[in-house]
Amino acid sequence: MGERVYLDWNATAPLRPVARAAMIDAMDRVGNPSSVHAEGRVARGLVERARASVAELVGCKPSEVVFTSGATEAASVLRSATAHAAVCVQETAHDCLWAHLDLGRAVERPATLAMGLANSETGVVTDPGAGPGWTYGDITCDSLLLDVVQAAGRIPWSFAWSGATLAILSAHKIGGPKGVGALIVREGTDIAALQLGGGQELGRRSGTENVAGIAGFGAAATAALEELNQGAWLNVEKLRNILEKTLASEAKETIFVGNDLDRLPNTSCFVTPGWKGETQVMQMDLAGFAVSSGSACSSGKVKVPRVLRAMGLDDGQAECALRVSLGPETTEENVLRFCEAWLKQERKIRDRAA
Amino acid sequence: MGERVYLDWNATAPLRPVARAAMIDAMDRVGNPSSVHAEGRVARGLVERARASVAELVGCKPSEVVFTSGATEAASVLRSATAHAAVCVQETAHDCLWAHLDLGRAVERPATLAMGLANSETGVVTDPGAGPGWTYGDITCDSLLLDVVQAAGRIPWSFAWSGATLAILSAHKIGGPKGVGALIVREGTDIAALQLGGGQELGRRSGTENVAGIAGFGAAATAALEELNQGAWLNVEKLRNILEKTLASEAKETIFVGNDLDRLPNTSCFVTPGWKGETQVMQMDLAGFAVSSGSACSSGKVKVPRVLRAMGLDDGQAECALRVSLGPETTEENVLRFCEAWLKQERKIRDRAA
Repeated sequence: MGERVYLDWNATAPLRPVARAAMIDAMDRVGNPSSVHAEGRVARGLVERARASVAELVGCKPSEVVFTSGATEAASVLRSATAHAAVCVQETAHDCLWAHLDLGRAVERPATLAMGLANSETGVVTDPGAGPGWTYGDITCDSLLLDVVQAAGRIPWSFAWSGATLAILSAHKIGGPKGVGALIVREGTDIAALQLGGGQELGRRSGTENVAGIAGFGAAATAALEELNQGAWLNVEKLRNILEKTLASEAKETIFVGNDLDRLPNTSCFVTPGWKGETQVMQMDLAGFAVSSGSACSSGKVKVPRVLRAMGLDDGQAECALRVSLGPETTEENVLRFCEAWLKQERKIRDRAA
Repeated sequence: MGERVYLDWNATAPLRPVARAAMIDAMDRVGNPSSVHAEGRVARGLVERARASVAELVGCKPSEVVFTSGATEAASVLRSATAHAAVCVQETAHDCLWAHLDLGRAVERPATLAMGLANSETGVVTDPGAGPGWTYGDITCDSLLLDVVQAAGRIPWSFAWSGATLAILSAHKIGGPKGVGALIVREGTDIAALQLGGGQELGRRSGTENVAGIAGFGAAATAALEELNQGAWLNVEKLRNILEKTLASEAKETIFVGNDLDRLPNTSCFVTPGWKGETQVMQMDLAGFAVSSGSACSSGKVKVPRVLRAMGLDDGQAECALRVSLGPETTEENVLRFCEAWLKQERKIRDRAA
């Protein structure tokens, strides 16, 4: 059997070598960024340099970047926004967080529209339109929280241009470490502090900073921007299209979700009626491929992607979805090997059904 | 000029080589711990192994350990404990967080007593006594949250034996990375989730885990326990006593805070009337020593330690405190060099005053 092939970039991307190096460098510095001595100032410098890099990737000001322990913490800003109702569009990796919010009940203004720029399962990109005044159904919202976790670094996007009020980011989806993220807060926007305490992050998020993680995030952001600008994701898109074409040529009953819509270049979500996604994940795992049947949420719990139902697939079909997500390290050989292994299983399923 | 000497272990400890190695190993694994494929299971294994190590250090069950982004996040459990009033004893590094709580107003039961086992500035250890039914003044509390951030790994302590309901821990104070911590939750205790979302940490704290940070925390915990058991901190105490004796022999007006009380072995806090702590930190920094004049809270902000006032020092005296905190890597030569440099400055101050 050959090497394992990792095709689950939407769950988490491999750590970039530059991020790895930046983390090790940071790990070798002792200071607490809040200490005033030389060691502290060095640590502070690492955090501020990373802040500038993240700002550059998403087109915002460094002062608008609030480092967090990940996208989930960043998204929690909505929970404390007691003055604001929140309208949550469940098309994001973090919809599990937002589901507990005001969805479904009458929304009074001012309200925040919370949505994902790109869907984690299907890769479908939704343009919220330029604000201010974002609408969802017949509700008009005054502010917009955009989950750009899957989109950042994969498609061109700028916070400044988007008009969004808030945005959430995760380091590990762009080749940084797990356990770091950011909340982007438009200048002049008042938010409740995510954590109270020592007053770090200009009082917006207290607690000693994850210096190594933040340094890795910064290095990953710089590399991601460079890669995006050099067209690496156009090549990823080519491979994704080869994947879909190869599978479609044989698996006639397989439905490729959202392939007529604007999508992330790296994501393919396909439904093969009668073959559960969960089973497919396990079979592909045994064959040496890491793929997914939904968001990597809590351990072991595979949830049927609500988004697929929202797209018109019935429950039975939605359970038969597989998500394959590629990255710049993916090769054509990886893709073709996956196709071969998957089609081999698919033929067995088809023969059994016949 | 010689090498820099780091004597600010209460702000943050140097990363242990074993923690560094564990982090690098974790960084080289791609999986998301919530993914069901082989890569995901490897990441999950790293997190669970670390959980067992942390549990062993503090004498609790692995299932009682909830990993967080640090002590500040862990302490935030009090904010969401809406059913419980909280009595906060301001003798902890995280008192800045708790200050906003119910302190001062009439407290209705059930109430939680929140306190630090060891004070960050002075190292003074306060025994909360065995529960249930912890008292503070004339208030009796039903549960106890113990901040063991500075005590863990430096003095023997067991969560199981302590009777505490909750405890908070920080990785970077025991030689793990910054940006990771834990909330220890006694079995059967109901807490509101620290973060909502994917349901990680048995639903008690959602969000993709900081796998590298957690792996480093676990390795640091194992090493810290071993070091403690081997008596490394008895040697640290010897050095701390040499430091205080050497300074006291010349600096007759210097007061050593809490040196007649039960203290952490590594902490010395001393007040030299007429010589501001902030100035001392800068002068010692220039001379090559990293020390502190208070908790490393938010950047640049040096707060006058309230705890010193609480111990009977007036504001003017409290402003003249310096904290020197040692660790197992500190040598006698480090200590003597510090004493020489500090006494040289102290003589100048005295001569000027004379």
